[in-house]
Amino acid sequence: MEFLINPKFEDYLKSLSVEEDPVVLEMEKYAQEKDFPIIGREGGRFLYLLTRLKNPGLVVEIGSGFGYSAYWFAKGVKKGKVVLIDYQQRNIQTAKKFFKKAGLLDKTEFRAGDGVEIGKEYSNIDILFLDLEKVRYMEAIKTLEKNLSPDGMVIADNVLFQGKVIFEPENKKAKILNRFNRYMFENYFSIILPIRDGILIGIKKS
Amino acid sequence: MEFLINPKFEDYLKSLSVEEDPVVLEMEKYAQEKDFPIIGREGGRFLYLLTRLKNPGLVVEIGSGFGYSAYWFAKGVKKGKVVLIDYQQRNIQTAKKFFKKAGLLDKTEFRAGDGVEIGKEYSNIDILFLDLEKVRYMEAIKTLEKNLSPDGMVIADNVLFQGKVIFEPENKKAKILNRFNRYMFENYFSIILPIRDGILIGIKKS
Repeated sequence: MEFLINPKFEDYLKSLSVEEDPVVLEMEKYAQEKDFPIIGREGGRFLYLLTRLKNPGLVVEIGSGFGYSAYWFAKGVKKGKVVLIDYQQRNIQTAKKFFKKAGLLDKTEFRAGDGVEIGKEYSNIDILFLDLEKVRYMEAIKTLEKNLSPDGMVIADNVLFQGKVIFEPENKKAKILNRFNRYMFENYFSIILPIRDGILIGIKKS
Repeated sequence: MEFLINPKFEDYLKSLSVEEDPVVLEMEKYAQEKDFPIIGREGGRFLYLLTRLKNPGLVVEIGSGFGYSAYWFAKGVKKGKVVLIDYQQRNIQTAKKFFKKAGLLDKTEFRAGDGVEIGKEYSNIDILFLDLEKVRYMEAIKTLEKNLSPDGMVIADNVLFQGKVIFEPENKKAKILNRFNRYMFENYFSIILPIRDGILIGIKKS
């Protein structure tokens, strides 16, 4: 398959920074061992930076896995709270273990179950992070956008679906994500960053 | 030369959004006609998004050219001010013309002269944007970092220098930019986004 970003770019970025947080390193090792897809170091660093800029009161994650992305959000929030939701109780337990080790439990809430359903319980969401099954992205945004705060931001991972949205537009999941992307560009001010699998960021139009 | 990002990615992004601001379109046309290097549509949209998130009181640009990047900053600031500095009076005049047309003069200040010298006059800079001669990036950051606000952010354009920082690391300017990048990763929490020529964003470490 054609590549989106030259892999040498990621190598260069890795050469620039040394990660010293042992929990980040442990989570990355866990992901590698279990072959668990995560947003990656650069994706995580980017989420942290966005969080520092936005200074959110409430971050809600739909599809947290074992908490890698939530970990970067939690490191970035000052007084806010990060809600992790995953349908697998086991993932949520693993996340809790990592967050406990890092002393981040007081900033976080852990929920197991259907992300879209549980997400409805929260209002004034400053950052809504979507990383659930791709076929449900549209349902998730349409259900939860009314729960965003007036300056709320949406971040969605994997919106290019391994590049297939660009290189294999007829692929079924690629079509679904393409529809989601179009919705986000029409209804929000959105950009897609070519980090890993494509990260979309949308804010309300001014 | 090898490419950093697949050009099809930019094509896809273009297909997602329609730019309706006539001044943006006019500035892009001007850049193309004069072969004037600009940060590009996606770079501009990204600056706008960062500005909306950060809500800065003061943006200072070192190396504004005819104002394309400043235009996106100015669109994003609410109550803040954007200072454009370029060593060419002619560029500053052109910028002024575009900003006047867009009704953005009340948010902006126009200065012709040496960017680093003029930059020193400003303190509490919330966003410092570097787009001057590459050999002066280190001088610029070292001179002006003390003028950043406590939560100040640095944005530097072209930090991968047409990919040469990665693909031709022995190139003289590539070496200089590599040194700048290392400085920014060591002394700030920084990321580089693979937008066009590489955009670095650095915030103070917490």
